[in-house]
Amino acid sequence: MTTQQLIDQIQAKKSFLCVGLDVDLNKIPQHVLETEDPIFEFNKAIIDATHDLAVAYKPNTAFYEAYGIKGWLSLEKTIRYINENYPDIFTIADAKRGDIGNTSSMYAKAFFEDLNFDSVTVAPYMGKDSVEPFLAFEDKHTIMLALTSNEGAFDFQTLNVNGTELYKQVLKTSKTWKNSHNLMYVVGATKAEYFTEIRKIIPDSFLLVPGVGAQGGSLSEVCKYGMNANVGLLINSSRAIIYASTGIDFAEKARAEALQMQQEMQAILG
Amino acid sequence: MTTQQLIDQIQAKKSFLCVGLDVDLNKIPQHVLETEDPIFEFNKAIIDATHDLAVAYKPNTAFYEAYGIKGWLSLEKTIRYINENYPDIFTIADAKRGDIGNTSSMYAKAFFEDLNFDSVTVAPYMGKDSVEPFLAFEDKHTIMLALTSNEGAFDFQTLNVNGTELYKQVLKTSKTWKNSHNLMYVVGATKAEYFTEIRKIIPDSFLLVPGVGAQGGSLSEVCKYGMNANVGLLINSSRAIIYASTGIDFAEKARAEALQMQQEMQAILG
Repeated sequence: MTTQQLIDQIQAKKSFLCVGLDVDLNKIPQHVLETEDPIFEFNKAIIDATHDLAVAYKPNTAFYEAYGIKGWLSLEKTIRYINENYPDIFTIADAKRGDIGNTSSMYAKAFFEDLNFDSVTVAPYMGKDSVEPFLAFEDKHTIMLALTSNEGAFDFQTLNVNGTELYKQVLKTSKTWKNSHNLMYVVGATKAEYFTEIRKIIPDSFLLVPGVGAQGGSLSEVCKYGMNANVGLLINSSRAIIYASTGIDFAEKARAEALQMQQEMQAILG
Repeated sequence: MTTQQLIDQIQAKKSFLCVGLDVDLNKIPQHVLETEDPIFEFNKAIIDATHDLAVAYKPNTAFYEAYGIKGWLSLEKTIRYINENYPDIFTIADAKRGDIGNTSSMYAKAFFEDLNFDSVTVAPYMGKDSVEPFLAFEDKHTIMLALTSNEGAFDFQTLNVNGTELYKQVLKTSKTWKNSHNLMYVVGATKAEYFTEIRKIIPDSFLLVPGVGAQGGSLSEVCKYGMNANVGLLINSSRAIIYASTGIDFAEKARAEALQMQQEMQAILG
């Protein structure tokens, strides 16, 4: 998917909501657990109930790998279901990968070719040659960790390097990499006041923003400081939407939560 | 596996060799490609031919994920084969994972419980709460990236933070984390002169060392500066061993390469 197609979708749906599919078998409704592939059936119901309100879905690979082959199969079925039924949706493999060049090439092949995701999240620690193999795929997007939403973000990401914070240096350096136009960045909503500074470095890039809701971030604050002319934000919500109810009505309740977020976004888009 | 069991194995085999199982279907012999599960058959032959010379095997998850379900199945069969036939071997899932706490817990479950690896590699960028869920598993080992063997290592890892390099700060900070005795570290062999400084910070920890051979690192240099009283090193070799030949004799040639490394190690252990 091109960036312009993503922007068009945002304008059409008046939404920049990403739904995180972090499906834990301990948290899904009993009647779904009784099906043959509970994770896929859960995802399918959530997707069918929210696809007109969300512009992106983000399966978190950990939650699939934890169930081995069965989990990987659920992931394959989920991405295929989205691609076949809702081809306008932007898909994100939240995988936080990154390794030496020949290995990153294999990860890129796994997520961009074999699974056909539009994007994948990557970690920056190993530098340029660990990320460029992902960037080589045209119309695929590489979403690199910059400033994350967790407490541990302050362990290293905000350390002062060369007179600036590490995460800002990561942003600056990444702009020099080959095909850096295929980069997006993860910036946590719990640190809304940082968005102004971040936008000075990467005014045009899309930001994937976790941490609104359950983790305490504010949608209006993030939009105030982080939005650009093309919106430039994908706001992720996982648990608040997919576990809105653990009853028979879970998909309906997920839709209600997604609708509320979409309406807040529509109001902000004005 | 306990650290003492790993040390005992090193002493018994007079080896601290780790064989990296980065199996690319484009590089394995034709007669293996014709079997039902070529990746597993290739691994099985390599393992059977080298298990008395190596103390660890390290499948690189990217090379399995790139083949989807079939690849993940080959990974499962490989780790099960090692655990059932060579229970003294230390196993490493080279996965470079790391995410917010609840997600890292799922990754830890995937590699330590579902697949039953002895250890997994993780990335440090997201800090304490992204690594501690792995450290909570007793007699399992979390191998964190410190200073990697690739060129991109110089993009961020060696930047100056608080008067020291970032990778040294990563080492220092990680020592304060809960269950940090379960940490090992990745330190690339291509930077042998760094080992002296690293050993001042983490004198007792095991280091997983990629980059000897194909990437240009020297075994004797690494041992000179990096070895401690318990050896404290696992030297990885992937391509130089597993692709020593692409003919019918690939396992035999792999053994010859592994034997040469083991003999160099035995001489150093003297």
